[in-house]
Amino acid sequence: MFTRETAPKVLTDEQIETIHRQAMRILEEIGTDVLHEGAKDLLSLHGQNVEGDRVRWDREFVMEMVARAPASFRVRARNPERGIEVGSGIPVWSSVGGPPFVSDLDTGRRGGSIADHDTLVKLTQATDLLNCAHSGAVEAMDLPVRSRHMDADYSAIRWSDKPYTTYGTSGPKARDGIEMAAIVHGGRDAIEAEPAILGVVNPNSPLIWDFRMTDALMVWAGANQPVIVTPFLLAGGTAPVSVSGALAIQVAEALSGVALAQTVRPGVACLYGSFFTALDMRTGSPAFGTPESVFGILAGAQLARRYGLPFRGGGGLASSNAVDAQAAAESQMMLWGTMLAGTDFVLHAAGWLEGGLTASFEKFALDLEVLAMFRRLSEGIGSSEEELAFDALAEIGPGGMFLASPHTMAHFKEWLYMSPTFLTPNFEEWELQGSPTADRRANVQWKKLLDSYEDPGLDPAIDEELRAYMAKRREEPPQEED
Amino acid sequence: MFTRETAPKVLTDEQIETIHRQAMRILEEIGTDVLHEGAKDLLSLHGQNVEGDRVRWDREFVMEMVARAPASFRVRARNPERGIEVGSGIPVWSSVGGPPFVSDLDTGRRGGSIADHDTLVKLTQATDLLNCAHSGAVEAMDLPVRSRHMDADYSAIRWSDKPYTTYGTSGPKARDGIEMAAIVHGGRDAIEAEPAILGVVNPNSPLIWDFRMTDALMVWAGANQPVIVTPFLLAGGTAPVSVSGALAIQVAEALSGVALAQTVRPGVACLYGSFFTALDMRTGSPAFGTPESVFGILAGAQLARRYGLPFRGGGGLASSNAVDAQAAAESQMMLWGTMLAGTDFVLHAAGWLEGGLTASFEKFALDLEVLAMFRRLSEGIGSSEEELAFDALAEIGPGGMFLASPHTMAHFKEWLYMSPTFLTPNFEEWELQGSPTADRRANVQWKKLLDSYEDPGLDPAIDEELRAYMAKRREEPPQEED
Repeated sequence: MFTRETAPKVLTDEQIETIHRQAMRILEEIGTDVLHEGAKDLLSLHGQNVEGDRVRWDREFVMEMVARAPASFRVRARNPERGIEVGSGIPVWSSVGGPPFVSDLDTGRRGGSIADHDTLVKLTQATDLLNCAHSGAVEAMDLPVRSRHMDADYSAIRWSDKPYTTYGTSGPKARDGIEMAAIVHGGRDAIEAEPAILGVVNPNSPLIWDFRMTDALMVWAGANQPVIVTPFLLAGGTAPVSVSGALAIQVAEALSGVALAQTVRPGVACLYGSFFTALDMRTGSPAFGTPESVFGILAGAQLARRYGLPFRGGGGLASSNAVDAQAAAESQMMLWGTMLAGTDFVLHAAGWLEGGLTASFEKFALDLEVLAMFRRLSEGIGSSEEELAFDALAEIGPGGMFLASPHTMAHFKEWLYMSPTFLTPNFEEWELQGSPTADRRANVQWKKLLDSYEDPGLDPAIDEELRAYMAKRREEPPQEED
Repeated sequence: MFTRETAPKVLTDEQIETIHRQAMRILEEIGTDVLHEGAKDLLSLHGQNVEGDRVRWDREFVMEMVARAPASFRVRARNPERGIEVGSGIPVWSSVGGPPFVSDLDTGRRGGSIADHDTLVKLTQATDLLNCAHSGAVEAMDLPVRSRHMDADYSAIRWSDKPYTTYGTSGPKARDGIEMAAIVHGGRDAIEAEPAILGVVNPNSPLIWDFRMTDALMVWAGANQPVIVTPFLLAGGTAPVSVSGALAIQVAEALSGVALAQTVRPGVACLYGSFFTALDMRTGSPAFGTPESVFGILAGAQLARRYGLPFRGGGGLASSNAVDAQAAAESQMMLWGTMLAGTDFVLHAAGWLEGGLTASFEKFALDLEVLAMFRRLSEGIGSSEEELAFDALAEIGPGGMFLASPHTMAHFKEWLYMSPTFLTPNFEEWELQGSPTADRRANVQWKKLLDSYEDPGLDPAIDEELRAYMAKRREEPPQEED
């Protein structure tokens, strides 16, 4: 039930075209600011109307460029068996990324460190529910800002052999990520032939392509590494308080980013990203897991398909400050949207808390629990003779019990989903255990997952080369565009 | 996205027929035990094979009887504006029912009382998210078992003017419920012309129609009151550990119940009920919100449609002992299934905790919160010129903020969903407030809802007649079939 073909149509075909036309009108009549001379030169060369920083985009040009991007593509992993296909109809799952804080029930909420980052990468490596690591899973606040991006990418490389999204938030940082991936994969040619990293760019909504993000986008595109173009739109903040109004800006921003990438390198893989929800107007903070955010995922996926682009959206996002009923309700709203939309690439699938300010280890475990249920749901219902179980029923007869029947004993472990986190002790027993709530059980589960982690190792020559690269770059004087 | 037409097809058409054939084979070859002489006589009269208590049902007979039941029907309320249509494509929502315990954060978990029952009815009356009350919302443990059913129905009648499901769990109790409804609605003829109550019958799974439930079914059917035939199937307990095996039993039980009702009174409204999940084999308790239970809802709805019957299923069921992340995750799994299935009638939509052993006031408020979000999702995405907001964007331009724009100010209250329970205070402020989790906010919300309750009143003559009826019945000596 979680396929592209069965995805709910929250937008009618007519509404999709209405939003498309509005997006084209935005690009042509309002335009975007592009705060990058190189990008403006390139767009001007391609016949776009550039006045000062304002670029007015021609709809034929934009659509022609967007058509160059592939509908699906592969990303290599250093473990060849762990390469991923993006846009295949099966979602790629990655962990939380970006929070400055980290939390667990043992020590509470604190600034993130590189050790926490390593732990999140290891958890991602240890679970088969995630197939892509996230460099920058948490900010390593204990490391200098200038070189932290390399430590994060190194952490993703060293402790996991899955593909990863790279940290880069500027041209030079993006370049470092590419250089490091090239070291891992045997050179730049290898990763240009089959990409090794994915980069995320967010325009400065509404409608500004700022220097750093534009620079990163162009660097990644130039190296043929996939770019996830994700407008970060908040109804009531960076977007109007209407879903369709925000979607039109999303289309304008996403497609202009994709178009720019295609002028840099025709055919480079690009994802249509959707990150949309509403501001809680009472606090000014984004509210996740709201109806608007579910619409954002489902409608975003429909629009991405309109343009033949793989769709990035959804994840286990929640606003709650604690791993409580609110966190679970919000993130499950998001994850149902994610699953139903037939999303191609999911960032922040596990561990996101407090509107993205905190990476929570307990939330990580709880999100995995829900993902495990979705996996089982994706498998569908079997109807073999053994599952139909006529003989077992005939033997037991009216009023019989299946509890200890041979049929039950033979199959329950395989056929029934029993959660390690969501338990069902009777109330008295549960009180005797100290009334443990799910967050406390999740505390046990993430540690168990971490215990199961196996170091994939890293070729010492590659390791040395990576370290040497990082050491050299740390020594270089800061650049303006860093 | 929540319509019958768009409901996910977790069973292929072929699987539906496979399960149907298996169900027919169960009825014909294994049969059901029917522990009710009157029912056996009636079935024998209709040509069914009765040997001792075992009835082997003929598939043509069963399907012919099932075809007599209407696809949709109305239920009257004492407030004429609050009558409901069942099977119209829009779900009917009712509260939790059946738990022996009740809980709130102020006093903890305790045996239910009639005062708690009144409170649950009042909460149901006060929210526009529920349109049907549930007699027996919690067991009134402070009242005698023998007459408690009348007090529960009276509570639903007195404190709410919405329709209600009646308590009855035996023939005489069902008869009391009918008599009381007749008093409220101006006589038996009136409620026979348009039914006033719905009764729930659960066979004693697998495959036993015990005396009390069969008696109740026949009494309700005889009075033309709708019967919700709901097999209570637990994989690994009353059913095999496979979804399709359990579904075949569900069909066999539901359809035999409906067929019996139709032999009593052709055309009486019957619902196909699904209450299916798996036992947690570690504890022997049912686990709600599992993949199996989601399949149970979605597949149950497909099967109900196969037979042209309105579908009862789903609800906010959870196994958790606390109003924590587990409770929220489990009940949202169930509610997404409920919504996606296009369910016609939803019992236990709000307040269900601890596998149904406890009616929780905080859970009630949290479930309503999720239902409110689903309602918003059901409304879809608008795309009027005002929502597309081109002029607002053109005015603000690239880099502008919508926070204080006239467009935002004019529309945010109407267009954005802001939850009273799921808040987004910043972490420091939240800590200063004492780190309130969602259950504590829900404690505030249900009290607020209760404060908003308005007594619909009850005609004093009807009230007196009801009280006189109950007093008379309390005086009568107990009957064997009570």
